[in-house]
Amino acid sequence: MSTLVRTGISLDRELLARFDRAIARKGYGSRSEAIRDLVREHSVASDVAQNRVIVGTLTLVYDHHQPKLSEHLIEAQHGYRGKVLAMTHVHLDHRNCLEVIILKGRGPEVQRLAEQLLSLRGVKHGKLVMTTTGKSLK
Amino acid sequence: MSTLVRTGISLDRELLARFDRAIARKGYGSRSEAIRDLVREHSVASDVAQNRVIVGTLTLVYDHHQPKLSEHLIEAQHGYRGKVLAMTHVHLDHRNCLEVIILKGRGPEVQRLAEQLLSLRGVKHGKLVMTTTGKSLK
Amino acid sequence: MSTLVRTGISLDRELLARFDRAIARKGYGSRSEAIRDLVREHSVASDVAQNRVIVGTLTLVYDHHQPKLSEHLIEAQHGYRGKVLAMTHVHLDHRNCLEVIILKGRGPEVQRLAEQLLSLRGVKHGKLVMTTTGKSLK
Amino acid sequence: MSTLVRTGISLDRELLARFDRAIARKGYGSRSEAIRDLVREHSVASDVAQNRVIVGTLTLVYDHHQPKLSEHLIEAQHGYRGKVLAMTHVHLDHRNCLEVIILKGRGPEVQRLAEQLLSLRGVKHGKLVMTTTGKSLK
Repeated sequence: MSTLVRTGISLDRELLARFDRAIARKGYGSRSEAIRDLVREHSVASDVAQNRVIVGTLTLVYDHHQPKLSEHLIEAQHGYRGKVLAMTHVHLDHRNCLEVIILKGRGPEVQRLAEQLLSLRGVKHGKLVMTTTGKSLK
Repeated sequence: MSTLVRTGISLDRELLARFDRAIARKGYGSRSEAIRDLVREHSVASDVAQNRVIVGTLTLVYDHHQPKLSEHLIEAQHGYRGKVLAMTHVHLDHRNCLEVIILKGRGPEVQRLAEQLLSLRGVKHGKLVMTTTGKSLK
Repeated sequence: MSTLVRTGISLDRELLARFDRAIARKGYGSRSEAIRDLVREHSVASDVAQNRVIVGTLTLVYDHHQPKLSEHLIEAQHGYRGKVLAMTHVHLDHRNCLEVIILKGRGPEVQRLAEQLLSLRGVKHGKLVMTTTGKSLK
Repeated sequence: MSTLVRTGISLDRELLARFDRAIARKGYGSRSEAIRDLVREHSVASDVAQNRVIVGTLTLVYDHHQPKLSEHLIEAQHGYRGKVLAMTHVHLDHRNCLEVIILKGRGPEVQRLAEQLLSLRGVKHGKLVMTTTGKSLK
């Protein structure tokens, strides 16, 4: 179970007023939640920098007419030492597919697989997001 | 149908040698494919900067015990004027869910929805990737 | 004169412990200062997103043997509607110069000038940092 | 002396047309120069990823009324094992200074110094740009 603790910070009045306006524009209902999100974002960046286990979501746009691409995509995923949690496939149009592959593993392993998949012929664009397994962000 | 054209560039010999080594490390089988990927990446960035229609994949990690969060997530998506193409849900552990929402729309609309969802209480972390509808990256 | 106000946030104990460890690694002496920096970072990003007046530092690496490049660099800066605050020049080696140009202006103006300078033949690499005029970050 | 070599790539006609329009908007006079810049950008990113010697420009905004900050800034720079190439100082207003510090060293060393300086009390904002020593981007 998670235990909440309270911490205080002192800030310049005007800086805080600007922060409050900026987070209201984004839709935040509370300042505390907005600051928590900044702390969590920092914590995730630190997980990545420290090579901890993370979850990555890799977005790929590819041309499914490209010969052998499906085989290569599958093969590379099978060679991956971490865990593939899920995969979603969307038909963008008659040629183009978008795939989101959700991966678990250490940062560098996840990045390595992403590079491998993005370099395949027929994969036109893609990006990797690295996030948390949740454990570190109670 | 897409038509291929050829273009040439002149580069310093050593720069090209370094590029060849760097792309080989990433797994590229051909220099032409690696340069095409750079051109496509530039083209996607330009789609975003020009507010064209793009596809976004939004990764969210959230605590499903947070009261009313599911309703708020659904509500915000219903208020979205673009199109939600697909949604994938992964159970990270007994508290934490990871969701990937695949969206189509103009860049600023997609970003706006992402900000709304990320600012909800209980959403702990997330990131938006903006990619192409495929049309611009034949 | 700036007035300090105090604000409190509640956070999960473990998240806070992780944050404390991560900021200690970076050299922070106090949690309050680290959180203030996150708030300031958010505030600067918001200045940029809202097209407010910002300060930009543009780093350029270029080959000073490139014919007419110096004239083009100067010319583009003269056409800039904002203010060039300072310029620093470093001789990297017999061919390559590094220049840092410090600019004041609205975000899009600053970005436009950066694009112009980066696209000149002979300019090999560069990056723009957007920061604050200081006013917003008391 | 640098030797130019020529390389060719084949691209979809429409992708190339879009690229040409996008680079014209940025001010590029030639497609070859725009593609060279993409290759150079890739090469710099690869220098950073491979921990090669790079040049960093660190932008700091700080409050010079903060007691002892100047000493701490100087001290940290003296502890740096790489080389400080130059430093530029701009008075933003009566409280705020902007400083750009130009550093040479391996990526992780440069990043470490940047983190140290950014975490000092009184340093309100800052960002590090990593670029090339020029050698790798003839």
